[in-house]
Amino acid sequence: MSWLEAELREQPDALARLLERQEDAARAAADAFRRPHIRYILIASRGSSSNVARYAQYLLGRAHRVPVMFATPSLYTIYEQPPRLDGAMVVGISQSGASPDVVAVLAEARDQGCPTLAITNDTSSPLARTADAVLDLEAGREQAVAATKTYLNSVGAVALLFTAIGNDAVARDELLRMPEALEAQIRLSLGSDAPPLDQYRDTIGATVVARGVNYGTGYEVALKIRELTGLVTEAYSPADLMHGPIAAVQEGWPVIVVAPSGPARPSVEEVVAPLRARGARMIAISDVRAVLRRAQTRLPLVPGVPEWLSPLTAVVPGQVTALRLTELRGLDLDHPRGLHKVTLTR
Amino acid sequence: MSWLEAELREQPDALARLLERQEDAARAAADAFRRPHIRYILIASRGSSSNVARYAQYLLGRAHRVPVMFATPSLYTIYEQPPRLDGAMVVGISQSGASPDVVAVLAEARDQGCPTLAITNDTSSPLARTADAVLDLEAGREQAVAATKTYLNSVGAVALLFTAIGNDAVARDELLRMPEALEAQIRLSLGSDAPPLDQYRDTIGATVVARGVNYGTGYEVALKIRELTGLVTEAYSPADLMHGPIAAVQEGWPVIVVAPSGPARPSVEEVVAPLRARGARMIAISDVRAVLRRAQTRLPLVPGVPEWLSPLTAVVPGQVTALRLTELRGLDLDHPRGLHKVTLTR
Repeated sequence: MSWLEAELREQPDALARLLERQEDAARAAADAFRRPHIRYILIASRGSSSNVARYAQYLLGRAHRVPVMFATPSLYTIYEQPPRLDGAMVVGISQSGASPDVVAVLAEARDQGCPTLAITNDTSSPLARTADAVLDLEAGREQAVAATKTYLNSVGAVALLFTAIGNDAVARDELLRMPEALEAQIRLSLGSDAPPLDQYRDTIGATVVARGVNYGTGYEVALKIRELTGLVTEAYSPADLMHGPIAAVQEGWPVIVVAPSGPARPSVEEVVAPLRARGARMIAISDVRAVLRRAQTRLPLVPGVPEWLSPLTAVVPGQVTALRLTELRGLDLDHPRGLHKVTLTR
Repeated sequence: MSWLEAELREQPDALARLLERQEDAARAAADAFRRPHIRYILIASRGSSSNVARYAQYLLGRAHRVPVMFATPSLYTIYEQPPRLDGAMVVGISQSGASPDVVAVLAEARDQGCPTLAITNDTSSPLARTADAVLDLEAGREQAVAATKTYLNSVGAVALLFTAIGNDAVARDELLRMPEALEAQIRLSLGSDAPPLDQYRDTIGATVVARGVNYGTGYEVALKIRELTGLVTEAYSPADLMHGPIAAVQEGWPVIVVAPSGPARPSVEEVVAPLRARGARMIAISDVRAVLRRAQTRLPLVPGVPEWLSPLTAVVPGQVTALRLTELRGLDLDHPRGLHKVTLTR
């Protein structure tokens, strides 16, 4: 078995480990978020971790009503004119904790006196050493170049932080049930009932549409397929897609809609008609029967997952799609051409 | 002549009109940005206007050191849980001023007591009526579906605002020279020396790489080509491209680097070697001879434009590339299939 598949299958255990071991650390980190002078959260990240940041933007924005912004590392590293960060709580997300640009943002924030938190799989990394507080991803070593369990546990870490900031016992219980739901999701997505993807083997690309708490899921599904297969995959919110980019959706172009039940679903579904009118082949990731029925390819989600936690299960059919397409195209699952596990950018 | 080409050629006049007529309005609007309790700027936008927002993020971030964040409209419209915006200066950018999601963000900000500014080409639009202050784009009616002069004047409006906030006479003089530089750029890009693009007629897509103040230029060039030609074009910062997405760059894939002289140029140039190693065909937009020399296709920029204003000229070779590729592919320049001038999303 490839490392990629082994690590994909290991995700429920990795998530359970995170939830078991990092609750105290999350509680300690949460205090800084509640300080009265905090006006917004600033997140520094690259790659898959930026997709986790998109989840944090909606989750923390919605429930705690704190605006979340993404850092522009070049202001710190290239222009050397970092913004004034008074009122910011600053979070770095990086599985390796090594990318100089992400570290530079946290170092500047610390120098400006802002509270800082590192979410990383390496507690001895430069990022961890720079931050006031650390959440350890507890994902164990990840061997495949493409992230699966470190992505999943980063999403889990943000969810854990969310329950800690709100001191929300109901949310905590919902989160603690997720390793089991994830286990069921992986069984479902890898099972013998999973639809064949042969018709997509020779596609040149695909578009993923998602919104709200699953906006980051859309980006992660697109990135996973892209890294592993070399296909030109991309993600859009339904609104952004309609403001021009839909022009590139031609006859037969595959479009994956990520549409679990919840407030964002109708908005995602609104683009199905214009996409169909352009001849797109629709692939649906959903727990809603009506959504699945309207798609050519149906990637079902296990039922009963609260919307705010659906990114933990909704990414799985996307990861499996990336895995299957890579196999169909006869490519190396663990070492995509020209990519490295740790990327150092400034 | 198509409306698109006429409006592209009209840009220097449109910019001159903006600078002549809106200086007082910019000065009045600037006061709100300088209030002592302002901690950050929040921008709501869609489509081309989001590319202008990316320019504002670097320009205002760099010089005034104020962090700039983008709104997440679904928190306002779909989840109905808008974030608390204390400390925010809120800006809506929309040529039509009509999209309900952009208006919703400004309405909420106003209700929360934040200062608001609309940058729009329609001063009687819902967006203009919602905001405390308005900057009129003064672009005149735009007939082509794809934005050219409204984009350019939105960038100009942000630059004008920047000089007003800083009360910066040197920057103001530099800006006032831009209609002339833009005129020269359009002559250069549309002139008989412009390189033929026939070799790209049958490409399926392209990637645009840009960083810093031109990050938004990269997105706008990608969007313009995409809207007009239906090609799968996309934009990345060099760092984001290296963190995975470069996997989709295959033999012969066109990559446009936007690299005017300035601090961001070396970082953009760093990706040229890995892109070449994958067999990409390089197209360079630059005023730097060495950068142009290394590219297969050279799209020169007029010299002497300060980096902070280079987005006004650097977008032009991209607009012309979109125009030429559309002609080569025999498509309608003014009415791309399935797109509309005003897109209403929530």
